Amino acid sequence: MPAADRPIAPDLPPPPAASFASDNAAGVAPEVMDALVAANAGPALAYGEDRWTAAAVADLREAFGAPVEVVPCWGGTGANVVGLASVLQPWEAVICTDSAHIVTDEAGAPARFTGATLVPVPHDDGKLRPAAVAPYMHWRGEVHHPQPRVLSISQVTELGTVYTDDEVAELADLAHAHDMVLHLDGARIANALAASGSDLRRSIRDVGVDLMTFGLTKDGAMYGDAVVYVQPALAAHAHLVRKQAGQLPSKARFVAAQISALLAEDRWLVHARHANAMAARLATAVSAIEGVTVRRPPEANAVFARIPAAAVTPLQEWSFFWPWDPATSLVRWMTGFATTEADVDRFAAGVAAVIAAVRA
Amino acid sequence: MPAADRPIAPDLPPPPAASFASDNAAGVAPEVMDALVAANAGPALAYGEDRWTAAAVADLREAFGAPVEVVPCWGGTGANVVGLASVLQPWEAVICTDSAHIVTDEAGAPARFTGATLVPVPHDDGKLRPAAVAPYMHWRGEVHHPQPRVLSISQVTELGTVYTDDEVAELADLAHAHDMVLHLDGARIANALAASGSDLRRSIRDVGVDLMTFGLTKDGAMYGDAVVYVQPALAAHAHLVRKQAGQLPSKARFVAAQISALLAEDRWLVHARHANAMAARLATAVSAIEGVTVRRPPEANAVFARIPAAAVTPLQEWSFFWPWDPATSLVRWMTGFATTEADVDRFAAGVAAVIAAVRA
Amino acid sequence: MPAADRPIAPDLPPPPAASFASDNAAGVAPEVMDALVAANAGPALAYGEDRWTAAAVADLREAFGAPVEVVPCWGGTGANVVGLASVLQPWEAVICTDSAHIVTDEAGAPARFTGATLVPVPHDDGKLRPAAVAPYMHWRGEVHHPQPRVLSISQVTELGTVYTDDEVAELADLAHAHDMVLHLDGARIANALAASGSDLRRSIRDVGVDLMTFGLTKDGAMYGDAVVYVQPALAAHAHLVRKQAGQLPSKARFVAAQISALLAEDRWLVHARHANAMAARLATAVSAIEGVTVRRPPEANAVFARIPAAAVTPLQEWSFFWPWDPATSLVRWMTGFATTEADVDRFAAGVAAVIAAVRA
Amino acid sequence: MPAADRPIAPDLPPPPAASFASDNAAGVAPEVMDALVAANAGPALAYGEDRWTAAAVADLREAFGAPVEVVPCWGGTGANVVGLASVLQPWEAVICTDSAHIVTDEAGAPARFTGATLVPVPHDDGKLRPAAVAPYMHWRGEVHHPQPRVLSISQVTELGTVYTDDEVAELADLAHAHDMVLHLDGARIANALAASGSDLRRSIRDVGVDLMTFGLTKDGAMYGDAVVYVQPALAAHAHLVRKQAGQLPSKARFVAAQISALLAEDRWLVHARHANAMAARLATAVSAIEGVTVRRPPEANAVFARIPAAAVTPLQEWSFFWPWDPATSLVRWMTGFATTEADVDRFAAGVAAVIAAVRA
Repeated sequence: MPAADRPIAPDLPPPPAASFASDNAAGVAPEVMDALVAANAGPALAYGEDRWTAAAVADLREAFGAPVEVVPCWGGTGANVVGLASVLQPWEAVICTDSAHIVTDEAGAPARFTGATLVPVPHDDGKLRPAAVAPYMHWRGEVHHPQPRVLSISQVTELGTVYTDDEVAELADLAHAHDMVLHLDGARIANALAASGSDLRRSIRDVGVDLMTFGLTKDGAMYGDAVVYVQPALAAHAHLVRKQAGQLPSKARFVAAQISALLAEDRWLVHARHANAMAARLATAVSAIEGVTVRRPPEANAVFARIPAAAVTPLQEWSFFWPWDPATSLVRWMTGFATTEADVDRFAAGVAAVIAAVRA
Repeated sequence: MPAADRPIAPDLPPPPAASFASDNAAGVAPEVMDALVAANAGPALAYGEDRWTAAAVADLREAFGAPVEVVPCWGGTGANVVGLASVLQPWEAVICTDSAHIVTDEAGAPARFTGATLVPVPHDDGKLRPAAVAPYMHWRGEVHHPQPRVLSISQVTELGTVYTDDEVAELADLAHAHDMVLHLDGARIANALAASGSDLRRSIRDVGVDLMTFGLTKDGAMYGDAVVYVQPALAAHAHLVRKQAGQLPSKARFVAAQISALLAEDRWLVHARHANAMAARLATAVSAIEGVTVRRPPEANAVFARIPAAAVTPLQEWSFFWPWDPATSLVRWMTGFATTEADVDRFAAGVAAVIAAVRA
Repeated sequence: MPAADRPIAPDLPPPPAASFASDNAAGVAPEVMDALVAANAGPALAYGEDRWTAAAVADLREAFGAPVEVVPCWGGTGANVVGLASVLQPWEAVICTDSAHIVTDEAGAPARFTGATLVPVPHDDGKLRPAAVAPYMHWRGEVHHPQPRVLSISQVTELGTVYTDDEVAELADLAHAHDMVLHLDGARIANALAASGSDLRRSIRDVGVDLMTFGLTKDGAMYGDAVVYVQPALAAHAHLVRKQAGQLPSKARFVAAQISALLAEDRWLVHARHANAMAARLATAVSAIEGVTVRRPPEANAVFARIPAAAVTPLQEWSFFWPWDPATSLVRWMTGFATTEADVDRFAAGVAAVIAAVRA
Repeated sequence: MPAADRPIAPDLPPPPAASFASDNAAGVAPEVMDALVAANAGPALAYGEDRWTAAAVADLREAFGAPVEVVPCWGGTGANVVGLASVLQPWEAVICTDSAHIVTDEAGAPARFTGATLVPVPHDDGKLRPAAVAPYMHWRGEVHHPQPRVLSISQVTELGTVYTDDEVAELADLAHAHDMVLHLDGARIANALAASGSDLRRSIRDVGVDLMTFGLTKDGAMYGDAVVYVQPALAAHAHLVRKQAGQLPSKARFVAAQISALLAEDRWLVHARHANAMAARLATAVSAIEGVTVRRPPEANAVFARIPAAAVTPLQEWSFFWPWDPATSLVRWMTGFATTEADVDRFAAGVAAVIAAVRA
């Protein structure tokens, strides 16, 4: 955590209003707050037996162009757990990259709740590739091995890259050829679609994703997530799984109202396009600073950069962010729907000033 | 679910605005909504590293008069899971009544997440009694038996009764004498304190409760719950447990702001006193109806009544509520912070009318 | 554990050669040891791909008169875990008596491994009764409740009673009417069949038991147990479950050889009839002792008796056995295939002597 | 599984009496069978309260030269589960190679039973290296990540290599520097010690292994394994864990008797030295066959070789063995205590004949 009380470089500008630590450091988009206020209208049966939930489901079915099953949850980790637990037996396995959020950033939640095996495999850029999966396919049918059942990808990946439709389709085909399913962690699906200019029909439904989490919190919501079962049959036990996972919101209307508010008029994509643009602006700005190497042009709303090791702590103390790989002083800067151009420029200026100071 | 489209009794009044199905059918108290809007002020680090969370913790420590540890969660089932998993090993056991929420109404969440054994015991009135616990004490130290570690009670109980301070203290003493802890499911702790006129210091801290869930959703909040560790040492791993249980809110400030808003000026107790008063009013009103037997005078905000079996469905179709024991046509009616006297009177009138019709 | 070094009653006879503590205190029947030696003949593929396993499966299919699926395991707790985990999802529930071995004497193994809920219900004599099950049937289909999926009984029960065929059939019918299965813990199935004079076809297959554990260790084997799926479809994932439960014997032939050796010429029933007869002899003998109350005439190989509280420890120190209910000085004495008439008479004499001494 | 009924090469010799599929295809060493017969002497209290168990514990303490805690189990997978579950919380992680038995060959047993995360990392030769572990050390203390708690190695590794004492000590030091423990899967520890000419004191105790499984089944036992806690404090809950894992043998004397029989006069090492010598002989023999590439000189009792892809199935049908990597036609041949020189020569002759036939 930052200790902001000792000066690093006397001539640092004040830190930006926005935080580049995470895209969930922002507050709530105005239309979301309006929707929460509007939904506070008298009584409604709890646990999803309300008209807001029905409307959100209808909105998502329209967005997917398909009779998807929708299971609203509290948050992203919970939605990953519910989705995976809906399709996994404990003797089965999930194959994913070793940087997958379900492996590294959920404190082992999917492993504990499902009892199943996560098989993390190496990768170059955050993307799961068929070649990395292939060696595990001969595990199927052999009683000593965990049985591969799920390929899991994140879109946007944890390294900020975005799968093409073809890449996703190839994984889906591989999964389906082995009676497996393709799961997609969509905590930043809006940023991915904003990056590609695509939509849920083309880049989720048509390419063969079987189930996904649909996360909006990083994109302007206050809370809430949803598991979307593109293959409705996979949702056979989803409501029981959700309840047992502690992910059934009681006053469910307030989750649903946020989904509808963000889907309306594609507000979710408007926010994501803005966040992506701010990352591009930041990458451009810091690329010009001597000592900064942007690892790859940002495809969505994350900038990964190597900076001088000595600059990491002073910069964090000025405006906090998370290290990504301490061994190589690789850091991650995230932008969000509320990041402004002024925030970006201010942050880049701070980066420049701190690095100049530590290199002096 | 109710099918409201076929007439039961032609002269039924319109149903009340409030729902008597559950105390989470209500919306959100105005001060809570105001606090959510106010907390939406610029960026804040996620996961509880924000000033609202610090303030809520301080507010709860003030209310308990003790350095309690506070772990905010998404909801009540999740908070029960986090609290229990913080203090249980899988080979240990929880002793509770067979009507406990953790046994009957969480789809097996605590069992699955902890791997531990729940030992439900019989009771008369929803209260765990030392005599029911005693036979299990000789299990301790014997490798074949699950090892009793937790006594768990609900306050208010699931049958609407309220433990006295002495009753709680007796269970706490029994637990502590066997190196066990006393856990309290406080989904309706406000209603219990409103009923007794007591406070957290006297009826939780001083009587020896070791950890509890502190639920406000039924009392005016939109969402959110908290585990309060009255014995701070029990929270040693609570943050890891919470994350692994999928109960760590990302934009945590919005949970915290609700807690502070309800604790301020004892708003939470004001709401609970009102809810209790409405239950008392309802019990009085329906007791006067021939064919209705109120099982016991309500101590908090639940009315349990036996009504003619033929009246159950028509009444549910008019204004939905949950059956409690179908075999004896025992039903449960809940009141909440938003229930009005007019709602109560309207509901009682409907009960009278439907029963009159089915008895005709 | 007994501390045999201080004299209780100077004129006590030497303790019997046999132990009345448990029916697994005995060694191994001669035909079992012969079979183990015989099976040690050169190499054989591990994990059940051997001819002894094939023969044992055939022997059991003959005994059941049905194409049962057989999954050999290491022991009784493991076999219960494998059987239950084969048919349970974590959001489901098992209903059984509160004295069931799976509840009280497996350290929570089934709960931890399956994640499912065990619902122990009260009973009089160790037998599950439809009336005790009925209240839980309305849980089915309601997402908040664990979903009843299994009725589990022990035959012989933990209280030494034996279900009649009609009693089992009634439970099976109840289970099947609700899309549930009937599981039977057969750790002492030999003793039950010896008591009734029945066989597996009539008292298991024909009455509707869906799966059972088939335990022989208490009946003369060295180790090993088996899950028998009377409904073969329930075994769809049994081999994976067994491996994941750590219950797949590597040199499986040595488990299988024991099964065949005991089934041959009904040796398992010969042993069980003998054990039962020794319990009857013991009950008769101790019933004549003033201060001893045999709770009910033994139906199989357990004698439950109330003795003076002061006599418990001295008797245990002379010839160890387990207390059953310390509060009422109810004790349990078990006989086995190797118990002799002389052992019984010696033990009864000791009981008489100790009680006489403490009453003096 | 082999289908032995169609001829591959008409002039093949009869297959060897021994199987090269696994070192648990052999039967039981004579001294083990003798010990089992000798232990069948009258009654003994079950569950380890017997004199054979006490003797086996004493024998192991002597062999380790330390007051190790010993917890006998049924088998190797079970012992791994018990050992790991004794030291792991569900939010913790085990770091091991991606070829570790606990990852690939236990059907997910440790993951399911512990709920913890297994982190498999890449390697060259089956050995865990500090460099592969290092990136995960910064996970400690951060609530989003599983908390590394165990380094787990196999000795002999699954690739047939043997860690040097220095290699193990380096891993132990790394573990201890981070409040972690070093776990060793000792399913073939006898073969490792036979290979190095070392002993348990030097290569386990002195180098800092904290707990291990001690497997003898592949080395001449009928069944049984043990968890040995070199750090006795780690065994605090081991007996409860074992019972809950379904790994507590009832007639425990028969497991213990085998341990003592094999430790006596270092019979276990005699067996292992023989097995290793047979592997060396096999490697030498097959290395001379054109078309066979032995991957590395065998250090213990496994020979890994690449053979022509077309030869795999015919050879399996003649004398079954397991493929190791179907993609590269890498196969594994195991030798054991009962493998004879004649078996080796016969097998090598068959390999030569089949390869000659498929290359013709």
